[in-house]
Amino acid sequence: MKLYDYWRSSAAYRVRIALNLNGQAYEHICVHLVKDGGQQHSADYKAKNPQGFIPALELEDGTILSQSMAILEYLDETTPEPAFLPASPKERAIVRSLAQIITSDIHPVNNLRILQYLAGELGVEDEPKMTWYRHWITKGFDALEARLGDDTFCFGDTPTLADICLVPQVYNAHRFKVDMTPYPKIARINETCLKLEAFQKAVPENQPDAV
Amino acid sequence: MKLYDYWRSSAAYRVRIALNLNGQAYEHICVHLVKDGGQQHSADYKAKNPQGFIPALELEDGTILSQSMAILEYLDETTPEPAFLPASPKERAIVRSLAQIITSDIHPVNNLRILQYLAGELGVEDEPKMTWYRHWITKGFDALEARLGDDTFCFGDTPTLADICLVPQVYNAHRFKVDMTPYPKIARINETCLKLEAFQKAVPENQPDAV
Repeated sequence: MKLYDYWRSSAAYRVRIALNLNGQAYEHICVHLVKDGGQQHSADYKAKNPQGFIPALELEDGTILSQSMAILEYLDETTPEPAFLPASPKERAIVRSLAQIITSDIHPVNNLRILQYLAGELGVEDEPKMTWYRHWITKGFDALEARLGDDTFCFGDTPTLADICLVPQVYNAHRFKVDMTPYPKIARINETCLKLEAFQKAVPENQPDAV
Repeated sequence: MKLYDYWRSSAAYRVRIALNLNGQAYEHICVHLVKDGGQQHSADYKAKNPQGFIPALELEDGTILSQSMAILEYLDETTPEPAFLPASPKERAIVRSLAQIITSDIHPVNNLRILQYLAGELGVEDEPKMTWYRHWITKGFDALEARLGDDTFCFGDTPTLADICLVPQVYNAHRFKVDMTPYPKIARINETCLKLEAFQKAVPENQPDAV
């Protein structure tokens, strides 16, 4: 498989973790989100993923899958062990809802294209832009922290979709200096995950295109 | 089951469609997103869903599920017929990725709380706020239209998760006067869906709390 990837893309980071947890080798293809005005907008890349978003996963038959959460579910369905979701529908819904606090309520609002629109079309300065960024992380982490218990991971004692989404979001929170003091459970689970090789190998700084 | 619902919430609209497609009776409980400063922020409702978001689905055993996409997957897993996803993992990934163009790339950025932040904290006027709203719909619909073929629905000849998410988003596009001329496939599929009773019954104007 080929992963169209960028070291700092947190949606790509999710897919790297999942591929590593599955022990799945993949070819890393860097699509630089900043260089050349954003290589994701190039005709070459748009022939792969017309939406011009990272990540995309090219399967062995040439099919290209887009949207990180659809890719994660695909990887879970095609590689039953390790499972990224519990067995019962109710527990699966709980894990998916934890993941979606990040993937629906935080990440889309803080995406590069949104920040570019705020600064460009709306003329928002750097400081209120960073306040925006931290605001949505804080709102989402407030909700998530309240939902977490004392399990080793977000749900249970093995990593699920929720942890796969959590770790890249905590990386962003650190990068933009969000105060993590109110989130001891999130911080603890993040540390636990990062002790695992699958997570560690997926860390942005450990990617071949990292600067 | 009890659905914590608001007629104009497009995430709730998705769940109404899914429940209707399943032929599942449910009790509608209105949580008014505007009255009383937003009833979703009340202590009563937050005891149900601490995140204060609509929709939430209360199961017969009292469990409360949140996040519309987690709820839709739950409804699909617990009611095998009609299926909201195809059988093969690859096709499931394709359908989920179509749905996620709406649920990750359009809807979160145009949510009520985002519009309130733009107007409040950032002082964005009504006109650029509406330009923002239409911009993200247009970007998402451009991507979606390019991915659609000549199938009756978004994928195949029965409604899937993608259609369940599409119809509420087209409702919003109409409401905020997005030019639909560039989207003949989206418009055609939307019309096809709305001929079905399950979709028609879920339309905002047909809800008991509609104004």
